[in-house]
Amino acid sequence: MSQRSLTVGMLGCGTVGSGVVQLLDEHADEITARLGCHLRMGPVAVRRLSLGRDVDVAGLTDDPRAVIDHPDTDIVVEVMGGIEPARSLISQALTAGKSVVTANKELVSTLGPELFALARAKGVRLEYEAAVAGGIPIIKPLRESLAGDRVRRVLGILNGTTNYVLTKMTEQGMELGEALAEAQRLGYAERDPSADIEGYDAAAKAAILASLAFDAEIVAGDVYREGITGVSSVDIAHARRMGYVIKLLAIAEDHDGDIGVRVHPSLIPASHPLASVRESFNAVFVQADAVGDLMFYGRGAGALPTASAVLGDVVDVARALLSGQRPTDGAPAKAKALRPVDDLTVQYYVLLDVTDEVGVLAEVATAFGHNQVSIKSVWQDGSGERAQLLLITHAARERDVQATLHDLRGLDHVRAVASVMRVEGGEV
Amino acid sequence: MSQRSLTVGMLGCGTVGSGVVQLLDEHADEITARLGCHLRMGPVAVRRLSLGRDVDVAGLTDDPRAVIDHPDTDIVVEVMGGIEPARSLISQALTAGKSVVTANKELVSTLGPELFALARAKGVRLEYEAAVAGGIPIIKPLRESLAGDRVRRVLGILNGTTNYVLTKMTEQGMELGEALAEAQRLGYAERDPSADIEGYDAAAKAAILASLAFDAEIVAGDVYREGITGVSSVDIAHARRMGYVIKLLAIAEDHDGDIGVRVHPSLIPASHPLASVRESFNAVFVQADAVGDLMFYGRGAGALPTASAVLGDVVDVARALLSGQRPTDGAPAKAKALRPVDDLTVQYYVLLDVTDEVGVLAEVATAFGHNQVSIKSVWQDGSGERAQLLLITHAARERDVQATLHDLRGLDHVRAVASVMRVEGGEV
Repeated sequence: MSQRSLTVGMLGCGTVGSGVVQLLDEHADEITARLGCHLRMGPVAVRRLSLGRDVDVAGLTDDPRAVIDHPDTDIVVEVMGGIEPARSLISQALTAGKSVVTANKELVSTLGPELFALARAKGVRLEYEAAVAGGIPIIKPLRESLAGDRVRRVLGILNGTTNYVLTKMTEQGMELGEALAEAQRLGYAERDPSADIEGYDAAAKAAILASLAFDAEIVAGDVYREGITGVSSVDIAHARRMGYVIKLLAIAEDHDGDIGVRVHPSLIPASHPLASVRESFNAVFVQADAVGDLMFYGRGAGALPTASAVLGDVVDVARALLSGQRPTDGAPAKAKALRPVDDLTVQYYVLLDVTDEVGVLAEVATAFGHNQVSIKSVWQDGSGERAQLLLITHAARERDVQATLHDLRGLDHVRAVASVMRVEGGEV
Repeated sequence: MSQRSLTVGMLGCGTVGSGVVQLLDEHADEITARLGCHLRMGPVAVRRLSLGRDVDVAGLTDDPRAVIDHPDTDIVVEVMGGIEPARSLISQALTAGKSVVTANKELVSTLGPELFALARAKGVRLEYEAAVAGGIPIIKPLRESLAGDRVRRVLGILNGTTNYVLTKMTEQGMELGEALAEAQRLGYAERDPSADIEGYDAAAKAAILASLAFDAEIVAGDVYREGITGVSSVDIAHARRMGYVIKLLAIAEDHDGDIGVRVHPSLIPASHPLASVRESFNAVFVQADAVGDLMFYGRGAGALPTASAVLGDVVDVARALLSGQRPTDGAPAKAKALRPVDDLTVQYYVLLDVTDEVGVLAEVATAFGHNQVSIKSVWQDGSGERAQLLLITHAARERDVQATLHDLRGLDHVRAVASVMRVEGGEV
């Protein structure tokens, strides 16, 4: 058995790909021992052959088809990123009967259903642990360990850049721009940070997690999304005084068979396990019927953590190949109804700039009550020109809260609705 | 495909077994959809047929062999606990070519090597996710997701009872006896709590985790063990003032190929992710070369969380049976050298009752220095009869610390070594 060997062909060799080459080399002996088979790096396709590389790769080519079609290639790793040519190449590999491991969040979150259907039809595997939360094993636990349970809700801190920024704002009182500049300096944020800051990255990952947790076809475009650009250090300070921390949360919930998926800044209780996830770490908090609360915590990005997840999938696929396993994932994911945000029931934090006069609170409270939104707690802050009212509501229908906000904007004593954010991880 | 069915036979039907029956019934449709095969509960062996049961089980018998030998039984679940007859019955099932799922921590942590060898020889599976940390998926991530990485250290809060007791002592200032009485009242502690309080339960789980993390044959008897009976509310208060929290930690480390496994109360920094694991929750913190820090958090015990883990394994084994997979776990675990505690390098917290006189600190510091133990910080506390010195050392060899403690006990100004505890999760 130990004489057998399997060959990994790779598409792309940037930081993650180089990490895969490095780990496969460094851990070759342990992998061989555990697998009972040698796992070797085969041909690797890169865009430009001339580029200098940190790792030693023998079979470099600029023709990705040569990797896929190579008779030695048993498993294809795709770490190019982006939609094309990754989509076509993965399709070609699957069609050729080769299992694929990808780290491509963008592709899986948009065209996952098409690719999974192809893998099923060809009786091969398409694995993507590295596409969500980097090195944290979450795909496999959701799919396999909780197979006999029923997931109700997934709350995730899925973007390291925004979590780093919010941590700096919380712990050092920085404003968003300052914290973001520091994140860019440290390499935690891109020069154009909009994919992170506006929540697109987290939304793509949320779609993948929701698809898996609820066995549903959900793509990134289905996810309701708000970024963190509206979060100020004032909000964070107010939240802290009331016992909350502000995080960019991805939330996927099962509402009696309808699925709601959204990404937005949220207040969570300071005692919630997600509240202590600091800096660029990621975490996924899962609530299931039988097992209760679970949390998975770790590095959500970075070359080696991501490469570790890719290699975990590769070893898994290799094990299946060795054992002659054919995938039996049963029926394809179902098209489930999406629950629009308007129909959700959520708690809210509302910050109002008000005139410092008698009767303000009565006027505001009436606007809430008129829309069937019940107030859980109120704080008055400042005076004169800087008078503010902070309110936390009980769980209420989103559309009722929106109607309340509309009414508040028309009140004599309300100068502005300074901030509005949902509260998660508590009641509901 | 959807016409096929697989049958689960079960040995034992206490709280966990009843949970398995309940979950298999409640989630039958989802499981069938995901697996492409109906999973049904078959014969169940119990000790006393006359006992009333909360769940409806059709095929009750008091003959466990009838479960194993039943031609319908495809997968055997063992939830009896204890060594015998569980060991003989599992061996018989494996010998009969049937895969087994067990929640039996005691058995796996003592006779695991023998049973895994038998499963390998027979080409069947023996799964045990529920034996460690209840409902938290940790076995599969360690074995599969990190297969391409190298684990250096595992830190675990593996016993819910002691974590509940320490949480109450920390947050409400209770003494151990009081917190334990409350835990017993709430059903978190047994009437005889010694297996939990003395660290035996955590040691068994630590052996299982260490075996898996380091691919080594480690049994419960190999684990160095201290319980929490020596921890007082004074220690906890001192620890907190210095920025630490006290937890009963299971620690498994790779020291250049030698393995050290120990369970003892430990000070960990309040900012460490394990520090915020409260009440009866469990967590496993993993440090690996490539992926960095990971943490898995959830319910470590309870009927339904444990049953969820059992059922996850059952679905996994069923999937393998359907796909015609034969286990290929490669070589058996290796017998690795154990690193005795004396040879470890650890940080220490030392609390001394001292006489309130000039020269105390010099005398104490000399004793440390003389044994090559470097002091990181010192606090003086109280005065007169109640004068105390608190010291935190830098990382030092265990045997040098023990020699220091011996010397301290002989000093004129030291009335007693009031408390000694290791510090984890920081330097080293």
